Amino acid sequence: MPVVVQKYGGSSVADPDRIFNVARRVARAHDSGKQVVVVISAMGDTTDDLIALAHKITDQPDSREMDMLLSTGEIVSAALLAMALHKLGYKAISLSGRQAGIQTDNSFSKAKILKVESDRIVHELNRGNIVIVAGFQGITGESDITTLGRGGSDTTAVALAISLKATACERFTDVDGIYTADPRICPEARKLKDITYDEMLELTSSGSKAMHYRAVELAGVYNMPVLVASSFNENPGTLIHGGELMEVRNKVRGIAHDLDVAKITLAGIPNQPGIAAAIFEPLAIAGISVDTIVQNALAGNITDLTFTVSRSDLKKALEVIQPIARSINAREVVTDAHLGKVSIVGTGMQNTPGYAARMFSALYKAGINIQLITTSEIRITCIIDEAKVKEAVQALHRAFELEKE
Amino acid sequence: MPVVVQKYGGSSVADPDRIFNVARRVARAHDSGKQVVVVISAMGDTTDDLIALAHKITDQPDSREMDMLLSTGEIVSAALLAMALHKLGYKAISLSGRQAGIQTDNSFSKAKILKVESDRIVHELNRGNIVIVAGFQGITGESDITTLGRGGSDTTAVALAISLKATACERFTDVDGIYTADPRICPEARKLKDITYDEMLELTSSGSKAMHYRAVELAGVYNMPVLVASSFNENPGTLIHGGELMEVRNKVRGIAHDLDVAKITLAGIPNQPGIAAAIFEPLAIAGISVDTIVQNALAGNITDLTFTVSRSDLKKALEVIQPIARSINAREVVTDAHLGKVSIVGTGMQNTPGYAARMFSALYKAGINIQLITTSEIRITCIIDEAKVKEAVQALHRAFELEKE
Repeated sequence: MPVVVQKYGGSSVADPDRIFNVARRVARAHDSGKQVVVVISAMGDTTDDLIALAHKITDQPDSREMDMLLSTGEIVSAALLAMALHKLGYKAISLSGRQAGIQTDNSFSKAKILKVESDRIVHELNRGNIVIVAGFQGITGESDITTLGRGGSDTTAVALAISLKATACERFTDVDGIYTADPRICPEARKLKDITYDEMLELTSSGSKAMHYRAVELAGVYNMPVLVASSFNENPGTLIHGGELMEVRNKVRGIAHDLDVAKITLAGIPNQPGIAAAIFEPLAIAGISVDTIVQNALAGNITDLTFTVSRSDLKKALEVIQPIARSINAREVVTDAHLGKVSIVGTGMQNTPGYAARMFSALYKAGINIQLITTSEIRITCIIDEAKVKEAVQALHRAFELEKE
Repeated sequence: MPVVVQKYGGSSVADPDRIFNVARRVARAHDSGKQVVVVISAMGDTTDDLIALAHKITDQPDSREMDMLLSTGEIVSAALLAMALHKLGYKAISLSGRQAGIQTDNSFSKAKILKVESDRIVHELNRGNIVIVAGFQGITGESDITTLGRGGSDTTAVALAISLKATACERFTDVDGIYTADPRICPEARKLKDITYDEMLELTSSGSKAMHYRAVELAGVYNMPVLVASSFNENPGTLIHGGELMEVRNKVRGIAHDLDVAKITLAGIPNQPGIAAAIFEPLAIAGISVDTIVQNALAGNITDLTFTVSRSDLKKALEVIQPIARSINAREVVTDAHLGKVSIVGTGMQNTPGYAARMFSALYKAGINIQLITTSEIRITCIIDEAKVKEAVQALHRAFELEKE
């Protein structure tokens, strides 16, 4: 019998009514002749509530204990969903990450899945059970409980789908697919029928919250198609896959944006080997994630180096950077905390001239100044004023006619 | 190094402040040169809240899923207590029932501990950790999570103390020991310095809520002394043990009472073999717990049989009993739902004449009518009007001078 893995996010199981809604959808998949494995997140704000509780105890909770604490949220929703399926007359069993055989390294709070020992899941499926797996968690070789960090439940679902050779991995949440831009700031945004792993990766790493980077990456490596759809309606979703796209190619596939960008520029620094390492190694050690890096070396041995971080990391980043700036005799350190990022993403863009020009022209006509530009094979990103991001997304959406199929 | 097992109930960890209170007590035991294992209940009303949540999904939750759900409560409090100890500068680690090696049968919701594989606990203690174990839970041979039912965390603590050959098992709760009677209804009630396992068993089975029957029984079988004391003050508690009592013996050690008694009498039934089985087997199959049974066979072949159940079981018991009563030609079925129970408990009572007489006389002088009498080796119980229970406890406390040491 074909196996399908369905994943439901926290908002889809936020209360008993919604749990029954999920149970009915799961039951339908079962009735259609599939073996169904469900990966479930914690109910609504449970994880945030548990984090807040821990922070009432200590401002620096130990990560092993934090994982012990947070892992309970998904177990609660898994058990409740099993009960709801029983109530509807279906055989179902909930499994913790450990019982589902999710084995991880011991990087507490951001563990990586090492392998999936899926014997128990297979056994329960063959007994006629719908199997509900607590997402976001696994277990180390020493039987300690880990959590997988951000995007964890998505990653659990993709890993299980790969391990079980599922015919489909379906991710249900409160948005019903991948859009050409965020519909909340761009009313013309259109839902895509499908998208490639690479395009999806560029969208997520450029600010799209639709699905987490690592889950998309894992799906891409094993070529596991993932359907992104809504748990609240029957609208067709978006299929993330590695094959040929079904739609006629319009090279720009979507506009991503990010409102949380802060910029640090070290102006007038020596243009010599080792300088970049001297700057970015201490930032990495301090746990600060650097996004865009731009260095524009002009003639001579003096250059400017600019990088961006999330706004909440700016203060900490400056504390690391100031002494370094002094030691390398930087002329000055300039910051801007109120920036945003807008990107156009599409396979094959680099092979087709004119996309960059069309993007810059659209922004210019909208009166938007570009502070930084970076590109990848399938993405062009501009850093602009935070206040202009919404306008920029709308202008680019129109310029590339994304509202048309 | 000596090992001590401390158990803290749900009211002792109901909020972050109380968790820190527990952490400081645990830290003191550690500072005094002991290896400390802490068994912890779920915070405050957590278990009741989870049960209520399950009942929003279904009125008959599957017991395996219920155990999966309920086991999370103790894991949350264990992780939080570990964090609190870290904050105070102590090494500590939380363990789930499974990680602590609590192996049970697969009677979900009322599992029995089969054995304790305490290697992990010993390893963590030897690494200098205070070990915090989630109480009330274990794991079956198939890695399914079980809960131990009522009194579960007490039982976990006693089982761990036995397995670790602890020098002491200390149970902290919101009452600071075992009293000669319930202080809420008998102001003269006096706290006992110590009590034997047998006396404690009679007290708990006669209505005292101080500690659960099965935990006392387990402690008695392995002769593990248990200290019952308060987590909110430093008052000396009561030691439950199997040796000679430290106090000069006053044969009556305590008065137990129970306000939840309903009586069913089958009047005018044949006094012949097999009748009792015909009545009590169907009750057992229906899951109704029968407490006191009294049959007073007079001359002739007709007798009366009376038994008591908890008030909430009366309706169900009658549904079972009515057809049986008709089939054995009982003259009538009489019930009384408003009864209570008062017991005097003390080792050696049966060897010393006059205790029963003194009890009946005290009740008579207080104008209290006795409906039923039953006795064990170390207990005499009278079933009386519910409305008279408080008065009866006070009268008996005075009659046996329990306020005096």
